[in-house]
Amino acid sequence: MLALYHFGPVANSLTPLLCLLEKGVAFDNRYLNSRLWEHHSPEFQAISPEGMVPVLLHDGRVVSESTVINEYVDEVFPEMPLRPADPFQRAQMRIWTKYVDEFFCPALTVLGANNASGFASSIDKSEMDSILKRMPNEEVRLKWATISSRGFDERELEDARRKLGNVAEKLERRLAGGSDWLVDSGYSLADIKWYSMVPGLARLVPDVCNETATPGIMRWLARMQARPAVRALPDYAK
Amino acid sequence: MLALYHFGPVANSLTPLLCLLEKGVAFDNRYLNSRLWEHHSPEFQAISPEGMVPVLLHDGRVVSESTVINEYVDEVFPEMPLRPADPFQRAQMRIWTKYVDEFFCPALTVLGANNASGFASSIDKSEMDSILKRMPNEEVRLKWATISSRGFDERELEDARRKLGNVAEKLERRLAGGSDWLVDSGYSLADIKWYSMVPGLARLVPDVCNETATPGIMRWLARMQARPAVRALPDYAK
Repeated sequence: MLALYHFGPVANSLTPLLCLLEKGVAFDNRYLNSRLWEHHSPEFQAISPEGMVPVLLHDGRVVSESTVINEYVDEVFPEMPLRPADPFQRAQMRIWTKYVDEFFCPALTVLGANNASGFASSIDKSEMDSILKRMPNEEVRLKWATISSRGFDERELEDARRKLGNVAEKLERRLAGGSDWLVDSGYSLADIKWYSMVPGLARLVPDVCNETATPGIMRWLARMQARPAVRALPDYAK
Repeated sequence: MLALYHFGPVANSLTPLLCLLEKGVAFDNRYLNSRLWEHHSPEFQAISPEGMVPVLLHDGRVVSESTVINEYVDEVFPEMPLRPADPFQRAQMRIWTKYVDEFFCPALTVLGANNASGFASSIDKSEMDSILKRMPNEEVRLKWATISSRGFDERELEDARRKLGNVAEKLERRLAGGSDWLVDSGYSLADIKWYSMVPGLARLVPDVCNETATPGIMRWLARMQARPAVRALPDYAK
């Protein structure tokens, strides 16, 4: 039995969703509504004690972390490989993927979370306090405490925008030169990982990611959006 | 031809060094003295344009990022595997390794860099300015600019110490229960990755990592230090 618990086709939840769809691996769709805090339910915490999403449940064993899930899926279901066969190309795939986890995603999260402050401030303060108390992961709890109280300060927001400018420049440098995909050997888990974040980049920092500044990125986005697996993603928004 | 460029057996440079020694793979030892800024030389930047260390040079191709280098080495030299054969165990190895890159190392770096402020302030200001101008990676340059001017503020240092308390607790929880190594299947790249940082944890936050608070970690450190490959590491400090 294979089941994916996710928040829908966005950010880290999109990563394993798109991998499974590209490979044509059948799975149980376990959508969780993050705004109803469904990932904090005792039922889900029996699977993911820290309430972290996405997680893959495979024959009774739980795999967490979207990047790790995707390499796991590609190892267990070797048809339609999404990792380069050549070890050097595979290393390049991992470098691109790692950069998202360590640099791109944390910077984007600051702006994304800052945008969620409207949602957070719509919640009654005593209710928010009890939601915070239920959050099992300390880093997530501190992030929401920041969003729902002081918000991020201007220095943090400015630093995130600066980093995202570098992210856009790095990706454009790769794609502007005529490369269709991130790794020379072709479409891979690296493109999937980046596709989980680039639409957010274009939305949250439109001045650094747009048709004029980053035409290579926009063409890559169009190539991604033409893929049948990407076109199937909206079916998993519930 | 296989060559490793590194800063000696510490932190991220230790990771691929120990992997190569454990596997018994012969390599050219290319030690760089970080305090003489040897990684900013034009010769090295021809190999690593951003001056990032460690890097592996294999038959003319460059692989960067210590975590990626180790999976590459384990794929290219399959004797003495350091990754579990079972995909689920391998996923656990990657989750442990990823946690170091995304959470443990960045927190430890704040305290380590703060400790380097003595070194930074011993450098003449105009010389430091010209060193900063030569630094090709913006994040590294901003870190050194912080160290050599204002230093980290108390909020950043306190946050790093809080995170490192959680790191020690997480590792102790795994090791206190009688597990010899991080992954059930045995010694792996996960132990190597953690060993690149845990001695720094014990040194920089001795109140949260010591014989009384974390006896399981101390026993694991002793097991690591008994390994022939670990005992050979001091030979690579130059």
